[in-house]
Amino acid sequence: MANSQKHSLANQKTVPWLAKFLPAGHWLQNYPREHLVGDVLAGFIVAVMLVPQGMAYALLAGLPPQVGLYASILPLVIYGLLGSSRALAVGPVAIVSLLVATGIAPLAEVGSAAYLALAIVLALLVGAIQMVMGLVRLGFLVNFLSHPVLAGFTSAAALVIGFSQLKHLLGLATPRLEFLETVGYTAVHLQETNLTTLAIGGVSILILVYFKAGLGQQLKRWRVPAGWVLPITKSAPLVIVVLGTALVWGLGLNEQAGVAIVGDVPAGLPPLTLPLVDLAVWQKLLPTALVISFVGYMESIAVAKSLASKRRQKVGANQELLALGAANLGAMFTGGFPVTGGFSRSVVNFDAGANSGLASIITAVLIALTVIFLTPIFYFLPQAVLAAIVMVAVAGLVDVKTFRHVWQYNKADAASFVVTFFAVLAVGVENGILLGVGVAMLLFIWRSSRPHVAVVGRLGDSEIYRNVLRHKVQCWPNVVAVRIDESLYFANSKFLEDTVLGVIADQPEIDHFVLIGTAVNFIDASALETLESLARQLKDAGVQLHLAAIKGPVLDRLRDIGFVDHLGEQFFHLTTHDAMKAIGVVGE
Amino acid sequence: MANSQKHSLANQKTVPWLAKFLPAGHWLQNYPREHLVGDVLAGFIVAVMLVPQGMAYALLAGLPPQVGLYASILPLVIYGLLGSSRALAVGPVAIVSLLVATGIAPLAEVGSAAYLALAIVLALLVGAIQMVMGLVRLGFLVNFLSHPVLAGFTSAAALVIGFSQLKHLLGLATPRLEFLETVGYTAVHLQETNLTTLAIGGVSILILVYFKAGLGQQLKRWRVPAGWVLPITKSAPLVIVVLGTALVWGLGLNEQAGVAIVGDVPAGLPPLTLPLVDLAVWQKLLPTALVISFVGYMESIAVAKSLASKRRQKVGANQELLALGAANLGAMFTGGFPVTGGFSRSVVNFDAGANSGLASIITAVLIALTVIFLTPIFYFLPQAVLAAIVMVAVAGLVDVKTFRHVWQYNKADAASFVVTFFAVLAVGVENGILLGVGVAMLLFIWRSSRPHVAVVGRLGDSEIYRNVLRHKVQCWPNVVAVRIDESLYFANSKFLEDTVLGVIADQPEIDHFVLIGTAVNFIDASALETLESLARQLKDAGVQLHLAAIKGPVLDRLRDIGFVDHLGEQFFHLTTHDAMKAIGVVGE
Repeated sequence: MANSQKHSLANQKTVPWLAKFLPAGHWLQNYPREHLVGDVLAGFIVAVMLVPQGMAYALLAGLPPQVGLYASILPLVIYGLLGSSRALAVGPVAIVSLLVATGIAPLAEVGSAAYLALAIVLALLVGAIQMVMGLVRLGFLVNFLSHPVLAGFTSAAALVIGFSQLKHLLGLATPRLEFLETVGYTAVHLQETNLTTLAIGGVSILILVYFKAGLGQQLKRWRVPAGWVLPITKSAPLVIVVLGTALVWGLGLNEQAGVAIVGDVPAGLPPLTLPLVDLAVWQKLLPTALVISFVGYMESIAVAKSLASKRRQKVGANQELLALGAANLGAMFTGGFPVTGGFSRSVVNFDAGANSGLASIITAVLIALTVIFLTPIFYFLPQAVLAAIVMVAVAGLVDVKTFRHVWQYNKADAASFVVTFFAVLAVGVENGILLGVGVAMLLFIWRSSRPHVAVVGRLGDSEIYRNVLRHKVQCWPNVVAVRIDESLYFANSKFLEDTVLGVIADQPEIDHFVLIGTAVNFIDASALETLESLARQLKDAGVQLHLAAIKGPVLDRLRDIGFVDHLGEQFFHLTTHDAMKAIGVVGE
Repeated sequence: MANSQKHSLANQKTVPWLAKFLPAGHWLQNYPREHLVGDVLAGFIVAVMLVPQGMAYALLAGLPPQVGLYASILPLVIYGLLGSSRALAVGPVAIVSLLVATGIAPLAEVGSAAYLALAIVLALLVGAIQMVMGLVRLGFLVNFLSHPVLAGFTSAAALVIGFSQLKHLLGLATPRLEFLETVGYTAVHLQETNLTTLAIGGVSILILVYFKAGLGQQLKRWRVPAGWVLPITKSAPLVIVVLGTALVWGLGLNEQAGVAIVGDVPAGLPPLTLPLVDLAVWQKLLPTALVISFVGYMESIAVAKSLASKRRQKVGANQELLALGAANLGAMFTGGFPVTGGFSRSVVNFDAGANSGLASIITAVLIALTVIFLTPIFYFLPQAVLAAIVMVAVAGLVDVKTFRHVWQYNKADAASFVVTFFAVLAVGVENGILLGVGVAMLLFIWRSSRPHVAVVGRLGDSEIYRNVLRHKVQCWPNVVAVRIDESLYFANSKFLEDTVLGVIADQPEIDHFVLIGTAVNFIDASALETLESLARQLKDAGVQLHLAAIKGPVLDRLRDIGFVDHLGEQFFHLTTHDAMKAIGVVGE
């Protein structure tokens, strides 16, 4: 039994080699016919959402709209073949687009060829980082982004994105600014608002919200067949694109009322592109690329896992890194910019019945047809419509619910949420998230530097020893048993010393001090030194130090370094009860 | 009993108010006559050491020699009255002097009035930081400096100091450079060595080493009274100062052979000084001041504690911060630079019999007499003699023994030693120690992100459950009990999920999963979310999740947030054995 369990813990992953690196191998070889309807429908609905979103997120990133479409073709095909999630919809997403803009804007002018070249370099770097992390199995690194930090970051980034779009919605000429400056600039120039633009944007937002919130119920009341509800409700972006474009074209609002339009979008498949090879530039973009790689992967794996668990499927963390990395390299080769798995489109993909990577591939084909044949109709598309799409998409990212839950549970976690949130607004998205990660780590160390300490006593006639403050237990005047609920290491070794010496100093009748190690998962060199000096000091004070219930791996190290011999083998006990028996206060 | 123990843990510090803030109150009111001999002798010997050391460390800091003497008067009186250690000898020390030079050199020219003004500002900032830390009881913050990081820092700083003194020993005109540049410059210009200077310095080193190593034995063999041995062996710096000065003066070596001398040292008590008030300057010096405050305090408290424990006395961490802070403010008012408790002089003070702060005050009086009457005789003092004093003093700081011990015990701790050591040499003392602290924290988080996991079984017929790999224990096919030896938090919550799901996926016969919390000291919001999703996923897979031996404080939080109700009160068990009884695999 023991062996079989060891075995099972070690060999969690025994999938054949091919399926491991090409998850599409499964469905390419035996595609079940009954999956086709779901895949086609999902692919179609996601394409309808992705055309306007892709263009909108490209503009958010400071890039021409067609770049968003280019990034929605080859990357989707690649993810469809390599991804381990069956429902993840890859492509441009809001937060990654914001990070792209933040990283590139200081290095090149928005709209210039250099700016686009940097976006392609960023796709290369993100792709390379993610693939390397997947290959050397560094997926666990993203665990350093705690949940509250990510939620705080996402909420603040959503605000930053929302405010960055206000200029399109109001028709202002706000330059690219930091968040606080953007708020200030907008407030000062509010009277310059182009009312026609605002009307188009405002109505677009109302339509989007209505399609999201009320339309589903209405359609049911109208007895529209259930299969039609999802395609209709998710077509809102398409509806406002068509309406907005028609309105501007029909009334000549771009010239008559100064409504900003998208303008020329070149037709044809994406060009083949190669990244700029300039190590100095690569180095400058590396921090941004690292943040995008981590944040993009976190967003993606979170939604992939949550969708997979609903159908009892699995996603592999490292396979996802490989697939996303390859998708980004695909974006690099086809004039795109960094992509990842987006939350809202993935949920729609799942709900519409996506059963395999085929859905992604169908989406890609539809986007390709769009860039070949339909780009001329985007000429009169008002930018306010795209801004409305972005603003409604990110509104859902402001995560008040998580904050409330975390606040209620744990103030330290809430603090890391709050710090990240305000840091992102005050010092920018990249520095903000780095600060958040640092604060989360410091809080963790701070927490373990003042551990919970329990003086324990015997529970009735049992072999169980519990906190004297929480349980009615038996104690003895000449023995004290103390459990320190933390690994012993540099940040709490002085605390350990003060605690032990404090107990001894205040109770002169004590002859035996039992330190209980059930919660001590390791003892570092600083704490070892403290233990050595404690043993010496207690001995001088006429108190014998005992160690009880020290864990195997910890005990091995203490033995190797000679501390067990130094203190005396007979003062190490398997349990607290054994220690008490050895001291003689309880019977055999 | 339970209550009395709680009481004793809580009230460790019940000293009267006055004695708490003015430890000298004790001995000022009832000074025992028999203490006088020890205090006078100790005060005298320390003064004999401190005169040349003070001047040498001032030169190391880039300051005129008298500044080192100024910093050895008022600060010592203040520490004598406020310090809680009875044997600590405060004054200029090598590593703090190095940090002063590193912090100020980029901002002002060595030897200029501005340079001295900045040193005084540094004394102000260090004094203020230490006093504030003492008042708001932030002494625990220094615990973030782990022992290996401090040892690595000290060892490297000793090398940096040693090499910085080579120019005085060889009579080279090496400019102030980074460590690696200094090594390179010295190697290239070695043939320019002033041989007379080298001879004076070399002989000085030999005398210092002989007094330190061999002379004590020799004196015993010569039957010199035991009471004389310490004063004689510790007079080595004085001996070489006298010999070196006489030699240069007698032979005119400064003009004949180009031996660099100290030159004019103004006579008279230190001037009253006030710091430059310039917030921009203060801000620039703040990082240096923080490093000096921490490192100075660490060096000081370590030696104070080790000496106090030899005589079963106590030192108070926060009182020491207050006293050192006040001493630095004293240095600020009297034209000095930052001071702290030094290792070697404190040990001598202790060995010579210092019984109270009176020893410090006697030292201060002797130094004051020196600056009033004796400074003219330092004119011909060769700088090579002072360099020899510094080099021999820091040679003992290269801590190979600690490194060997730490390496043998724990490779991660050894890594933080090595990183700090080389970082100090490569990127400078301040960045080096910050990098070391960062690495130590990251290693701690990394270690706890992949915790030790044990599948446990029942030990014989006992209520004890231990690792199946280490003990011969009983298991059951439909139950698995897993102990995760770490608090559950963001950095290991994915690890937890993978571990639990991996065990379940590989053993379809499992109906009950018991997660044992003996080593779980807290569960943060990220891990709580993981537990919630695990409970859901296990339920879907037909497996019941049980939690056993969750600690009181952790359980309280899980209850408050509703997780206990969510999972079901009946699936929480006091011990693993209780869980097994509830599941029904063991009898009552």
